[in-house]
Amino acid sequence: MTTPAVDTLSRCSIARSLEVLGEKWTLLIVRNAFMGQTRFSQFRDGLGIAKDVLADRLATLVDIGVMERRAYREPGERERFEYVLTPAGAQLKLVLGSLIGWGDENRPSGFGPSSIYIEAATGDEVHLEFRTADGRAVALENVSAIVGPGAL
Amino acid sequence: MTTPAVDTLSRCSIARSLEVLGEKWTLLIVRNAFMGQTRFSQFRDGLGIAKDVLADRLATLVDIGVMERRAYREPGERERFEYVLTPAGAQLKLVLGSLIGWGDENRPSGFGPSSIYIEAATGDEVHLEFRTADGRAVALENVSAIVGPGAL
Repeated sequence: MTTPAVDTLSRCSIARSLEVLGEKWTLLIVRNAFMGQTRFSQFRDGLGIAKDVLADRLATLVDIGVMERRAYREPGERERFEYVLTPAGAQLKLVLGSLIGWGDENRPSGFGPSSIYIEAATGDEVHLEFRTADGRAVALENVSAIVGPGAL
Repeated sequence: MTTPAVDTLSRCSIARSLEVLGEKWTLLIVRNAFMGQTRFSQFRDGLGIAKDVLADRLATLVDIGVMERRAYREPGERERFEYVLTPAGAQLKLVLGSLIGWGDENRPSGFGPSSIYIEAATGDEVHLEFRTADGRAVALENVSAIVGPGAL
């Protein structure tokens, strides 16, 4: 019989990331936040997601420090909240960028990319690459994984 | 009432990627494949995952072209199958690399990284960066998403 490798998994950075990011809708909410959405109603309409599921996912995103919940009040209305990406949230651009690249190449819709990542100042398209600390590009086939100090 | 944005989602490269990669265990099987595992029993023991779930995930990975199923036979034993990453599977290094980086920085285990990506030939550590086509590094805060031709 196999013992579930619970401890091994919790030590794995990929497993810990997926624990929160792997839930359905979570990364799509982050995607919409990158496109400028901040309000509950924007996420709900943009994603066509049930209100209770959206509330649950936003709470998790705030909990894990990916989004910050801020109060705002429109004239004559009650106080509401908006959701803004934190620096930890901004770092998810790397995750979303990798998923876009993989999906466009390996699961194409037939209509071209749905979104394109660019350098804001120039409009130049950007893509993800592995680089060494001194800036050398390393091709995917030359990248290996080794066990780090946090592994069991 | 909000209409579920099903068509919009299927046009989104992130949503299409998550449809298959977002299922629990799928990316962890790919991670173990990168570390050299190929056999059903290796994945089962390495991940502590139920046999029926593992069989289901491996079938999906073969279905979507991430893994290839190959027959092998040990002397005196019945024919078995091993699972090897395809080129589409190898491209998932970018996705795993982005999740490792995010998890290590934002969900640290307290014991350091569990795995480290290196250039195989030199042992130099590598990390993911956005670059332009002519090789200029672009910082995360300067990366924006724009709507591509495949968007609805």
